[in-house]
Amino acid sequence: MRIVSLAELRAAASFDVVFGAVRDALVAHAAGATQIPPPMHLVFPDVDGDCHVKAGYMTGAQHFAVKIASGFYRNSAVGLPNNNGLVMVVDATNGVPAAILADEGWLTAWRTAAAGALITHALAPPEVCDIAVMGTGLQARLQVVWLRELRTLNSVRVWGRRPGEVERLCEELAEDGINASPGDIAGAECVITATAATTPLAPADAFSSAVHVTALGTDLPGKGELPPELFASASIIATDDHEQCLHHGDFGNAVRAGIVSSDSDVSVGSVLRDGVRHRSGLSIADLTGIGAADAAVASAVLSVLG
Amino acid sequence: MRIVSLAELRAAASFDVVFGAVRDALVAHAAGATQIPPPMHLVFPDVDGDCHVKAGYMTGAQHFAVKIASGFYRNSAVGLPNNNGLVMVVDATNGVPAAILADEGWLTAWRTAAAGALITHALAPPEVCDIAVMGTGLQARLQVVWLRELRTLNSVRVWGRRPGEVERLCEELAEDGINASPGDIAGAECVITATAATTPLAPADAFSSAVHVTALGTDLPGKGELPPELFASASIIATDDHEQCLHHGDFGNAVRAGIVSSDSDVSVGSVLRDGVRHRSGLSIADLTGIGAADAAVASAVLSVLG
Repeated sequence: MRIVSLAELRAAASFDVVFGAVRDALVAHAAGATQIPPPMHLVFPDVDGDCHVKAGYMTGAQHFAVKIASGFYRNSAVGLPNNNGLVMVVDATNGVPAAILADEGWLTAWRTAAAGALITHALAPPEVCDIAVMGTGLQARLQVVWLRELRTLNSVRVWGRRPGEVERLCEELAEDGINASPGDIAGAECVITATAATTPLAPADAFSSAVHVTALGTDLPGKGELPPELFASASIIATDDHEQCLHHGDFGNAVRAGIVSSDSDVSVGSVLRDGVRHRSGLSIADLTGIGAADAAVASAVLSVLG
Repeated sequence: MRIVSLAELRAAASFDVVFGAVRDALVAHAAGATQIPPPMHLVFPDVDGDCHVKAGYMTGAQHFAVKIASGFYRNSAVGLPNNNGLVMVVDATNGVPAAILADEGWLTAWRTAAAGALITHALAPPEVCDIAVMGTGLQARLQVVWLRELRTLNSVRVWGRRPGEVERLCEELAEDGINASPGDIAGAECVITATAATTPLAPADAFSSAVHVTALGTDLPGKGELPPELFASASIIATDDHEQCLHHGDFGNAVRAGIVSSDSDVSVGSVLRDGVRHRSGLSIADLTGIGAADAAVASAVLSVLG
């Protein structure tokens, strides 16, 4: 059994490789050429832990993947990482296990970053180069860093509930060569939300200057980042997976609130494939994460490693 | 990452260890003290392949497990095994991957053998020592061998569609020290079915002398081993998981045929825990396999290995 270490993964998972794999997966998914069974979920309430298992396959790919991702939220108190996991890559032509990627959750982080950056870049008008990010965690940072690979960013405003965390993220982004400062989303044309919020981060009118919003923190029922009312003013709603976003994305929250109908979305993959004509008003991208992107990234990285 | 080889697993997975773990899991499952999310399923029609992913946890256990089991039915033509897979064992207290068991499907085979033997032994009257087995594959053999660990077997009749396979299994059982001969189920008091049949193996009247039947081949929608009418004469119907057996077991086929009601089963775990009083007439056990048993066996074997 081949075990691929995180160091090997880091070396192989270049921006180009990950962007290419995630784009291919999203486009294939929009065309129905993927398999993503409903994820499995286990909970360990006694130790404040949970585990998700996702599987995915992009038709015609060399591999499929099964990903285990756990969150045990008391681990940091005993010096262990809260998040853990691995990805099993299996040859799709014969079922033989090809490798175990000991990614500690990084492949998920990278594919989420790539998916967010791709759709933000596709939907935010080309001249937009000042953005706001809501959230101060790893994914907030990655969204900015990966988007900067696709377009010039003049400035980034960082909003968060804890000033210390906002300062820290601004410093980290500065280390990445990005001009970041604490602020809110007032006046921002492009907003990216990357939090674990369960209630809207701001009222709809706070987004009044936005022409594009990408929301990617809502990955479980009960979560929600965007005010449902915001969807009323959207001319484009793009979801990475219609059913998933309806089930537990911000899009689903807006549908359940009666703001928009359940058929008012287009697929992220079709936007990436065809672009958008006659763009006007607000666009919103809702990402919940698809297993086919995990599989595509895992397979692509393994191909690089040879 | 610790990888446990099949040779290590074989050494650790004694009858006692596996019987104990499977019994514990079934009893816990009957008490609601397990988690078994609905399995995930991927299909690869171009190469006649499929893959199941099952997860399971028994409340309070040290580990949970995620199992990948694939069947690629053209592999044997190129010298690869048709069935493959592995089991990931994760620490249920902190989410840290504990080991990968490169079991090539054997843990599933053993837990299925143990579950079948346990319920056959619990429901077949103690004096029954002549049995019939329908099917000639690995699981048919294991059902007999594992049952022999629990009770004396005088004779085994083997029924199968292909005479050559029947002969082979009889020879293999003879090597195991078991008196086996080709035959049918007429006159058999205890029948075990272990096939991949999609239509009933025999009409209901062929089972007229049976006092107990264990059916374990029906693990997917579209399969079915027992004639639905047989359930009409059963005084006990035991299922390893009510919902699964209703969804895709022989029990579900009988319910859909209108032969029995959907609440006419008891749990295998409760029979193992409490036994059966005032036994009379026919008992049927329908096993579809539960992920909690996979997890329990994986955890137990890992504990033996230390």
